[in-house]
Amino acid sequence: MDATGPTEREHTFSWVDPGVGLAQLPLLSGLDYLSGMRDGSIPRPPMASLMNLALIEVQHGRVAFECQPAEAHYNPLGMVHGGLACTLLDTVVGCAAHSTLAAGFGYTSIDLSVSYLRPITLNHGVLRAEGAVVKSGSRVIFSEGRILGPDGELLATATSSLLVFAAGPSPSAPAKHAQE
Amino acid sequence: MDATGPTEREHTFSWVDPGVGLAQLPLLSGLDYLSGMRDGSIPRPPMASLMNLALIEVQHGRVAFECQPAEAHYNPLGMVHGGLACTLLDTVVGCAAHSTLAAGFGYTSIDLSVSYLRPITLNHGVLRAEGAVVKSGSRVIFSEGRILGPDGELLATATSSLLVFAAGPSPSAPAKHAQE
Amino acid sequence: MDATGPTEREHTFSWVDPGVGLAQLPLLSGLDYLSGMRDGSIPRPPMASLMNLALIEVQHGRVAFECQPAEAHYNPLGMVHGGLACTLLDTVVGCAAHSTLAAGFGYTSIDLSVSYLRPITLNHGVLRAEGAVVKSGSRVIFSEGRILGPDGELLATATSSLLVFAAGPSPSAPAKHAQE
Amino acid sequence: MDATGPTEREHTFSWVDPGVGLAQLPLLSGLDYLSGMRDGSIPRPPMASLMNLALIEVQHGRVAFECQPAEAHYNPLGMVHGGLACTLLDTVVGCAAHSTLAAGFGYTSIDLSVSYLRPITLNHGVLRAEGAVVKSGSRVIFSEGRILGPDGELLATATSSLLVFAAGPSPSAPAKHAQE
Repeated sequence: MDATGPTEREHTFSWVDPGVGLAQLPLLSGLDYLSGMRDGSIPRPPMASLMNLALIEVQHGRVAFECQPAEAHYNPLGMVHGGLACTLLDTVVGCAAHSTLAAGFGYTSIDLSVSYLRPITLNHGVLRAEGAVVKSGSRVIFSEGRILGPDGELLATATSSLLVFAAGPSPSAPAKHAQE
Repeated sequence: MDATGPTEREHTFSWVDPGVGLAQLPLLSGLDYLSGMRDGSIPRPPMASLMNLALIEVQHGRVAFECQPAEAHYNPLGMVHGGLACTLLDTVVGCAAHSTLAAGFGYTSIDLSVSYLRPITLNHGVLRAEGAVVKSGSRVIFSEGRILGPDGELLATATSSLLVFAAGPSPSAPAKHAQE
Repeated sequence: MDATGPTEREHTFSWVDPGVGLAQLPLLSGLDYLSGMRDGSIPRPPMASLMNLALIEVQHGRVAFECQPAEAHYNPLGMVHGGLACTLLDTVVGCAAHSTLAAGFGYTSIDLSVSYLRPITLNHGVLRAEGAVVKSGSRVIFSEGRILGPDGELLATATSSLLVFAAGPSPSAPAKHAQE
Repeated sequence: MDATGPTEREHTFSWVDPGVGLAQLPLLSGLDYLSGMRDGSIPRPPMASLMNLALIEVQHGRVAFECQPAEAHYNPLGMVHGGLACTLLDTVVGCAAHSTLAAGFGYTSIDLSVSYLRPITLNHGVLRAEGAVVKSGSRVIFSEGRILGPDGELLATATSSLLVFAAGPSPSAPAKHAQE
């Protein structure tokens, strides 16, 4: 954060063209793709830059992210906007599901149900968010996620349903959406 | 968005110290506070800058926002991250509830349940998000929200429960959280 | 309800072997099947008897049921158990989805998210529950439902995601579940 | 279940006037009340009879029920109606919350979000449902629940938010609802 006036703030976020990662997406299993993202060989998506989150652990059916909230994420009520918790939770439930998929399969979130257990403020420091598959399936995957403060305090939880689909033969159209 | 290399991107977001709006929060009714935000006399919160969203309509129990997604909001799947839809929906259900509160009362989201009806891409252009109170109450408010594309196509919906509380006598602690 | 002692109660519920309706299920479109249930040519399922609910309206993407709660549906808190509202809401969101399906297609609920707006008591008399498809699809259908008191007061709402699948060639196995 | 014709079925359910338990409700802590229900000194509510469910374990913040589904609980699709899973889950999340409350405090469900992981049929035999408080609070309690088959297979999960309130001075009006 850079002060530009008594009450003005600004911050420059940077990211890599999402097409770089997207070209790899249909070629790799979910576990290989996410492992590449954890190791830095595959760039993290733009939204991860805005929300200051990073994938730190991935295994079959399980992921963990770290997130450092900032003033940039505040809502009008003087705390971190619920949208940051949602973004984190949507990310971990989706990546947990993705980690179980073979190359050539895609997924899309059907829904996300979030419980805001405690308010998140800058005092929390670095958050940890965990996602886990509750039930896998060839058509629908059920995942759950949770956000923890540095002392292990539970801050928010979520459940999600995700649709699995064959991503199609062409890597040029990896984002075809399953619900259409 | 500013290109800094063949695949590198960056963008500078700016906002006003959230303390400016926060000082007004306990002094105004929700409708007056949000009207000020719509008219620009009260600064929008930092998260609204990151998500490129603006309050355009407010009345008792109802609000509408506009949002212009950008590449900065993309997920690894080649579409706008679900976290943007969640942020928009969390915002409209909360502001709809807030618009019904007298000065001196605060609220906090208990939960948010989001349905992702259709993927959101940059092709959608400017989105419209609407929030409405389904049932008001002195302790719990139920709100619903939805996101529409430029042609009125329904892209996502949400329901939310929000807790109402007396914000306390001191404007210096407006963010005291209700769930503790 | 039949009194058998100062504080003992009993009631006899009756229904038709669910196999009778099940034999028709794979042969009819959802609209034809539900129309038969409304008209009485196809028996209502056992759970509809226990919950005292009846299909009264059906069209493509929309249904309405009536329900008469009784003391048999009370919870320990002196009001109608939330499970009755859930059963009604699960029913209307599912039947609304079913009403859009051609013969040979089945569906199964992925999830249901219920908001309890107001307590339901016997004073409410006959309830009306409405279900409607929010977005149809070849793989996932999104529906919403609501319960209204006799005066139109909104008592509970729900949203649901439902998975669509080809029911398979054999009417002898109509209940194959889609999530496996 | 008693056959009364080739395809007709009937069953007589019995219960005790819910006013008997209701008279005890405001006088006992949640743990004492539920312990009495487990031990049989406080009658189970009518809905528990219809759904064939019984409280078998209770401690502070945790409960377990058993449930024996029957043909009476079938839906038109040839499996147990989702409403039975909802009733079980609504029960366990509510009783888990109740078990943490002192005498003189009541609660009411705000919402319930259910994931249907696997279909439930009579083949499952006796189900086990567990509820646990995720976060307690003086105003809102967050609980979660799950249903397990006899082999420990996870069949459904739920999360719920519950509102806590002072039940008021008079035992004659224990069911006053918190959301009004």
